[in-house]
Amino acid sequence: MRIGLAGLGNVGAGVVRLLHANRDLLKARGVSLTVVAASARNRDKERSCDVSDIEWEDDPRALASRRDVEAVVELIGGAEGAALDVAAETLKHGKHLVTANKDLIAAHGVEMARIAEESGVQLSFEAAVCGGIPVLKTLREGLAGNRIDEIRGILNGTCNFILTRMGSDGADFATALAEAQEHGFAEADPSADIDGRDSANKLAILSAIAFGIVPDVSAISVQGIRKVTLNDIRSAAQRGGAIKLIGHARRVDRSIMQRVKPIFIPFDQMLAGVGGVINAVEISGDFMGDLMLQGAGAGGDATASAVVADLIDIARGLRCPSFGRPAASLVSLTPAQRANVG
Amino acid sequence: MRIGLAGLGNVGAGVVRLLHANRDLLKARGVSLTVVAASARNRDKERSCDVSDIEWEDDPRALASRRDVEAVVELIGGAEGAALDVAAETLKHGKHLVTANKDLIAAHGVEMARIAEESGVQLSFEAAVCGGIPVLKTLREGLAGNRIDEIRGILNGTCNFILTRMGSDGADFATALAEAQEHGFAEADPSADIDGRDSANKLAILSAIAFGIVPDVSAISVQGIRKVTLNDIRSAAQRGGAIKLIGHARRVDRSIMQRVKPIFIPFDQMLAGVGGVINAVEISGDFMGDLMLQGAGAGGDATASAVVADLIDIARGLRCPSFGRPAASLVSLTPAQRANVG
Repeated sequence: MRIGLAGLGNVGAGVVRLLHANRDLLKARGVSLTVVAASARNRDKERSCDVSDIEWEDDPRALASRRDVEAVVELIGGAEGAALDVAAETLKHGKHLVTANKDLIAAHGVEMARIAEESGVQLSFEAAVCGGIPVLKTLREGLAGNRIDEIRGILNGTCNFILTRMGSDGADFATALAEAQEHGFAEADPSADIDGRDSANKLAILSAIAFGIVPDVSAISVQGIRKVTLNDIRSAAQRGGAIKLIGHARRVDRSIMQRVKPIFIPFDQMLAGVGGVINAVEISGDFMGDLMLQGAGAGGDATASAVVADLIDIARGLRCPSFGRPAASLVSLTPAQRANVG
Repeated sequence: MRIGLAGLGNVGAGVVRLLHANRDLLKARGVSLTVVAASARNRDKERSCDVSDIEWEDDPRALASRRDVEAVVELIGGAEGAALDVAAETLKHGKHLVTANKDLIAAHGVEMARIAEESGVQLSFEAAVCGGIPVLKTLREGLAGNRIDEIRGILNGTCNFILTRMGSDGADFATALAEAQEHGFAEADPSADIDGRDSANKLAILSAIAFGIVPDVSAISVQGIRKVTLNDIRSAAQRGGAIKLIGHARRVDRSIMQRVKPIFIPFDQMLAGVGGVINAVEISGDFMGDLMLQGAGAGGDATASAVVADLIDIARGLRCPSFGRPAASLVSLTPAQRANVG
């Protein structure tokens, strides 16, 4: 399968390196994936991957209409602008779309899924939630027989790194944040992470698949970690637990409670032991019981693993509705349902 | 999709109850699954499910040739006899086969996969390994971009229950085993569990998918928990850890080390904290990093969740080679490779 790659940052470079390093292995698994064309803001930047065999497009939108491209990987980021254009154009041209863009999917995922269904192509976004953890496939396919009742997780590695540092090393918030930025875990503008918006986007996508609702960040009560003090964390430890930023969605009466909030987790619960940039998600359902997944929630290589898994599924001919059911059947929470919970 | 059900024990009854309880939900997910015919040793046994709408076959082999059956679920158990007959006949008749039978897959999985490929149907066995944890799908699809380097897990709930009881309550082996039997976690003849053969079958299947090798229990060094004493467990606790029965497979030079053994796990490793009948699997790969899955490894409901997930995949048209690559391309370890490790 021939691929167009829009975006060559950490994840894009990881995809190119993975496809090169594991070419023979993928062939043994019955799959051949080749990046034929790519686009990025700066063509001449130093990269950790070899792009000499890949044709260049100055405008990423051009990837969507290339005759030699069967699937486009969108790694531009942002809910609007070039990312949205590339996604919509790709699907309208009858090509598959794989994206790691949680903002785009939380804001326009249903619309994109509808275009994909109309065009008979696949829209996949495993990499948008929890990097290398295949949690969307697990929910959409592996647990598809269950009524899902609850999802609870550490969905943002940056916040978890900061809270872990504050807990184990007694660093204050500003110091821990600066350290996260030094390590490259946090952006220069870290507000999407530490104000909880990144977690909220991921939770909205998880909820959509789990409960069959339209992703809607505005229905999520969101509180970040900016106001968590060293005192809060020490006091939690004295009470036998840790403060973790938890994304939580749960059936309540006839609605879905959705919340992102720093909360107290007793040390005897698994989530309390999840440290550093690791992500973890707990899922409860009526027949499966409780399942927990834990792994690398971010980083170029782990996220590339998720992007490539989506591409392999597509190359193998696996087709599944993006949100686990037809896009038109996802329901929006009513204002009353939204007011009723939180 | 119309289903024939061979076996109506805990898992079979769970499948019938799940399909009844979640019928509307599955319909919303685009899937309709109906059990049209069933077979079991004793027709008149009291069961936790309603079978009044289901036609009866005295011989399970008859399910394979029924014109109104598109997929057969094999829950008879055992590597030979009726289970093998039903599996082979089903696939040869061009019907899909879903099974929870780890003995069958470890012994004849490649042969069955080859027949499935020739007939253009799907052979799926998620329920054969770790009950409700979708670990085979995760390995085969979610992590398919990675070179898998290592798998390590608690694969048998009965043994983990016994070791947990011995650790937390100071019960001796015989008492803990009797308690497991009372709870229905252990069979009247518990030897397959406590001698490690059940774990070895599961490890052989995991290794096959992870490393592209033919499942081969005889290549696994197997030690059970019969000789674990209360003293061993107390001494482990004093050294800061627990004794766990671990299935472990790892790339070593040009071969694969495969071992089932009770070993010391320090308390700061996640596997040490996995208690009771819970299962857990850690997977390491080159791009994904480390992933851990933890959940209900046994029980009728959780295993039914896995059986139904396989059925949903098939009904949705998802087709994937059973071991993640064509059956003919799985390689057998040479005697030299097998002697080289362990």
